[in-house]
Amino acid sequence: MAFTRLIEKIDRLQNPTVAGLDPKLEYIPAHIVHKAVRDHGETLEAAAAALFQFNRGLIDALCGIVPAVKPQCAYYELYGWPGVRALAQTIAYAKEKDMFVITDGKRNDIGSTMEAYAAAYLGKVAIGGIEISPFGGEALTVNGYLGTDGIKPLLEICRKEEKGIFVLVKTSNPSSGELQDQALANGTVYEEMGRLCERWGKASIDRFGYSAVGAVVGATYPEQLTELRQKLPHTFFLVPGYGAQGGGAKDVAGAFDENGRGAVINSSRAIMCAYQKEAWAGEDFAKAAAGEAEAMRDAIRAVL
Amino acid sequence: MAFTRLIEKIDRLQNPTVAGLDPKLEYIPAHIVHKAVRDHGETLEAAAAALFQFNRGLIDALCGIVPAVKPQCAYYELYGWPGVRALAQTIAYAKEKDMFVITDGKRNDIGSTMEAYAAAYLGKVAIGGIEISPFGGEALTVNGYLGTDGIKPLLEICRKEEKGIFVLVKTSNPSSGELQDQALANGTVYEEMGRLCERWGKASIDRFGYSAVGAVVGATYPEQLTELRQKLPHTFFLVPGYGAQGGGAKDVAGAFDENGRGAVINSSRAIMCAYQKEAWAGEDFAKAAAGEAEAMRDAIRAVL
Repeated sequence: MAFTRLIEKIDRLQNPTVAGLDPKLEYIPAHIVHKAVRDHGETLEAAAAALFQFNRGLIDALCGIVPAVKPQCAYYELYGWPGVRALAQTIAYAKEKDMFVITDGKRNDIGSTMEAYAAAYLGKVAIGGIEISPFGGEALTVNGYLGTDGIKPLLEICRKEEKGIFVLVKTSNPSSGELQDQALANGTVYEEMGRLCERWGKASIDRFGYSAVGAVVGATYPEQLTELRQKLPHTFFLVPGYGAQGGGAKDVAGAFDENGRGAVINSSRAIMCAYQKEAWAGEDFAKAAAGEAEAMRDAIRAVL
Repeated sequence: MAFTRLIEKIDRLQNPTVAGLDPKLEYIPAHIVHKAVRDHGETLEAAAAALFQFNRGLIDALCGIVPAVKPQCAYYELYGWPGVRALAQTIAYAKEKDMFVITDGKRNDIGSTMEAYAAAYLGKVAIGGIEISPFGGEALTVNGYLGTDGIKPLLEICRKEEKGIFVLVKTSNPSSGELQDQALANGTVYEEMGRLCERWGKASIDRFGYSAVGAVVGATYPEQLTELRQKLPHTFFLVPGYGAQGGGAKDVAGAFDENGRGAVINSSRAIMCAYQKEAWAGEDFAKAAAGEAEAMRDAIRAVL
């Protein structure tokens, strides 16, 4: 099971966090961007080269501290197909460094189209007589608005390839309640989505008690996080919203079970852009990122 | 406004349909795939070359008959970054042939991440001193589960670049009701999503009465389609589920307003794979696709 491997990595590093890799050009140190533009001109290729070099530096600095990375697809697609190539390179490099890779694409569709997404991000595709892994991450974020038809193709690949998914349940943004908090006959929309996660995961529960179907639940809603931890005992949580979006260590304490497991907390900008903070002035971006990642690890450990 | 241009193209060709470009290798004639593998080996590049050649043939055959194409991102991502390059080439080629391009990515996220998707698929990105359009379609399908935070970044780019979005409201798949049909205090989840579409579109209504915020409503739910047409007077519909998924011309009649406008009906496999049908045996794939597209146009015209 995918989350078994993730939990083992978390236990080994004593660090239930994941570093988001959302590399906009504005976040990348000027010397990296300038060199890329010198080599490739003002092109998407230049942006992609800068993205990958930045990510490689972050991964090198973080791989002994943080068990997982979460590249956000949007920031790679922003730079066209060369950006998407940088995403594939980033995933491959992180896996080489033994990090668990959560591809944050929030994909959603039905039937054979969802099968295509599942094969692209978690499985393999056949070209003539051989099978190729197009992106090769270990987990994918998905949106369950379309119901079981949109999730079933993923479950098959999760079982075959030992991969996992995270379904959006209660997102970290201010307006997440517009739809997600609305009351149904039996609880809210997000509670219903959580129940669906438990149902979809039923057949894949691992020795830690967690299934291959996780949930995204925002750090910015600590009460709902605690409540969902109780109600969804087999659903592993990916928790965004820590740091830049306002969630702190105390806010995420409720995401964990009695063994201190059951969740991985994401931070993107606070780690990636640590070098821009006054506290790290003049420091190399990778060293600053490692320092912030250690501080976040220690803050979260303290509330477990 | 994006949908003004789409409606004008529909009026000109008297054809409210869109051809889905979902090119799995299995859908592509063997001689195209074989040549690509001869040129590039059993690689993702070979698949991508076959995809683009197939699409180019379809676009050449369809551009005088069908006003729009809808490439489905999943089938390009399935072939890794070379596949995504074929997506960018396909979009550029369709625009060159004066077709309206709906990129079917069902993207969803919040804040600066959604801005990145919006810039990638509908806008531009700055690299040094220049601005580049990473993909360049004219409309994007999106998922509104995250609420206004996930839609607002799109609205700004839609206004600036005269583009449009289609929000998933009632999808065509059998299990779409699991969440979408559940009852809220005031109607169902999908009705609430429809109301949000009207609200998000309010500031962008064009001379045909339609806003830049459209909705995806499946042909497989004709009653809901008719009901939503009444309730969402400013929301242009993208209607999947015609043909292979079981929807027919009578099922989609209710998607149109009293002027025969307000919707565009998608067909993917029935057009792309027409050459595999007995009726078109021995015929070139592009000619077969054109024949199926004309038959679909005539069938839908007959119910308007």
